[in-house]
Amino acid sequence: MNRLLADRMRGISAFYVMELLQRAKQLEREGRDIVHMEIGEPDFPTPQAVLDAGDRLLKTGEVKYTAAAGLPELRRAIADFYRKRYGIALEPRRVFVTPGASGAFLLAFGVTLNPGERIMMPDPCYPCNDNFVQLFNGKTQLVEVDADSAYQLTADAVERHWLPDTKGVLVASPANPTGTLIAAAEFDTVINRVQTLGGCFYSDEIYHGLTYEKPARTALAVSQKAFVINSFSKFFGMTGWRVGWLVVPEDFISATEKLAQNIFISTPTHSQYAALASFSDANLAELERRRQLFQQRRDFLYDGLIRLGFKLACKPEGAFYLYADCSAFTDDSFAFARELLETEGVAVTPGKDFGAYRAQNHIRFAYTASIDRMADALARIERFLCR
Amino acid sequence: MNRLLADRMRGISAFYVMELLQRAKQLEREGRDIVHMEIGEPDFPTPQAVLDAGDRLLKTGEVKYTAAAGLPELRRAIADFYRKRYGIALEPRRVFVTPGASGAFLLAFGVTLNPGERIMMPDPCYPCNDNFVQLFNGKTQLVEVDADSAYQLTADAVERHWLPDTKGVLVASPANPTGTLIAAAEFDTVINRVQTLGGCFYSDEIYHGLTYEKPARTALAVSQKAFVINSFSKFFGMTGWRVGWLVVPEDFISATEKLAQNIFISTPTHSQYAALASFSDANLAELERRRQLFQQRRDFLYDGLIRLGFKLACKPEGAFYLYADCSAFTDDSFAFARELLETEGVAVTPGKDFGAYRAQNHIRFAYTASIDRMADALARIERFLCR
Repeated sequence: MNRLLADRMRGISAFYVMELLQRAKQLEREGRDIVHMEIGEPDFPTPQAVLDAGDRLLKTGEVKYTAAAGLPELRRAIADFYRKRYGIALEPRRVFVTPGASGAFLLAFGVTLNPGERIMMPDPCYPCNDNFVQLFNGKTQLVEVDADSAYQLTADAVERHWLPDTKGVLVASPANPTGTLIAAAEFDTVINRVQTLGGCFYSDEIYHGLTYEKPARTALAVSQKAFVINSFSKFFGMTGWRVGWLVVPEDFISATEKLAQNIFISTPTHSQYAALASFSDANLAELERRRQLFQQRRDFLYDGLIRLGFKLACKPEGAFYLYADCSAFTDDSFAFARELLETEGVAVTPGKDFGAYRAQNHIRFAYTASIDRMADALARIERFLCR
Repeated sequence: MNRLLADRMRGISAFYVMELLQRAKQLEREGRDIVHMEIGEPDFPTPQAVLDAGDRLLKTGEVKYTAAAGLPELRRAIADFYRKRYGIALEPRRVFVTPGASGAFLLAFGVTLNPGERIMMPDPCYPCNDNFVQLFNGKTQLVEVDADSAYQLTADAVERHWLPDTKGVLVASPANPTGTLIAAAEFDTVINRVQTLGGCFYSDEIYHGLTYEKPARTALAVSQKAFVINSFSKFFGMTGWRVGWLVVPEDFISATEKLAQNIFISTPTHSQYAALASFSDANLAELERRRQLFQQRRDFLYDGLIRLGFKLACKPEGAFYLYADCSAFTDDSFAFARELLETEGVAVTPGKDFGAYRAQNHIRFAYTASIDRMADALARIERFLCR
């Protein structure tokens, strides 16, 4: 028992998948071939235009602190992207460049959440979200969601679960681990309901751009009072660069700036200059090519998993995840994932990393591997199921 | 009044110097020549060996997430640096690579500090320290310090100010804004006293390496229970890369790893590979050359300020700051700094950024400009004083 440990750490969980990941690396060191479908990271290299821009900055040698809120030209470029992509006018001063979406969450909850206040989010959802709330000694209200709402919160559910100390609601669309989008009309209703109830709306839009049937709707199309979290990691393919952004309401600009100055000083300078190259037409064309590859992979993996007997109530329209019901095979998806790794060398993420609700019956497959590799993985899984 | 703003934001202050910095940039756009002595950032470019290592990583295109705790080889290199530099054996698994020292502070307070608990630190000190405590809804206990203790806490002061809800004590040596070191014997006594009192000791060692008479002592030479914050920004000259580290006690390793996974995912990958090149003999020789230049600058600026009538009770032995008493000229150092900027184009940082105690009588000068530029600045200040 560590007497000096902060209480919040009791509420913060490690990722279960890390245990599997370490074991997978161990097996690889022993010479085993592992198919990685556990990681939320595109397998593509950083786009060339972005690498070139990073390289140009390094050539100057001047990798100095930037303004805490980010390079002015990058804030403008992001604001401009909202105009081009969504037809939305956004003032650059509402855009804060952050060290990844992680930094955006730190700022968004840091400027709004008091100890003891609650943030509502769906179960399942991305585990860090809950842990950011714990970091500030807040409480997470998990609301169980099913395929009938595309694993998303509804306005009715928000209202039904609202408590006096609920501070706000977090929606991710496309979502992790389910890859599902919230219906546009429901999204608007949820945002309006939250604001009528007097809460904050946090929109996790880090998988925007990675959608396969229709574009995702941004909360900024509905309300200028929403907090919007986005990132260069997923669609833009810049994971290790650690650069994302947060859009805040007008009356949070000065607080957000103060907090960013204090807790980050600034976002990595070379990453910011590199990110500037993301918005060129040539780079966007490359990203569109990658998006189409992800769509082919999704279709391939979806069909393959269904064929093997996994259940998927809907075909997810975004991100690069399938959250498959494995109850035909097991009531303990963690043990299933562990055995699958040991026996066949396929690494996947167990449901319990994403919540409690029916977690033991679900596994997340990331289609961040090529179709060839996934075909191999499906053959191995089939063998595993017939063992 | 913003009803949704978190309470903590009332306790978090912006840097006053930011107002001056913005004004300085405005004046530069209008064609004025400004001597910058306000910024805590070396004026040297990133060392070539580090740029080259960053460049090599970019050439691979593989800028992917690393382990949350950092690249294993960088953790080993940092541990090895403790052996070479301080003669201390340190297990790499106690070393966490972080997004700058900012990230190290987030982790150190995140894993230890509960809302309402107090962290003791000197006044004056670096403003972010207090604001990190506010972030976690803790309370800062500022203890006024003077030149007679080299602006550092003493063991007696720690004991005298200790309260039931004091969680720990933060010491920075060399310190910002004063540039002073704590005496080695006093340092050891402070650490032991804090641990006898049952608290956490946090050692801010980000200016280690930048010392001009004797090396600074690391808390790890005294106790394996201390939290040690360090950075590649200052001595290693990598500010904009945002990479630092935290050394934690054995029984905080797993909590720190969980928190790092959740709030950062990882530290910028290219920055970590670049930082690996910091420890080569050739690079350390270049850093030694820079250290000697800083020493020459310190001596030059110290003599110049004394000659003009500023008071410096002791000659600071580290960092790149002089914290000068300007009471011969003004009782409002912020107004003084503003007028000095407007009239003569010399940018400095007013004492109020570093606390309340005699802040109106102090100004911080950073010797992050060349001797030629500082000679120019001194001539301008002399003219300003004779106006």
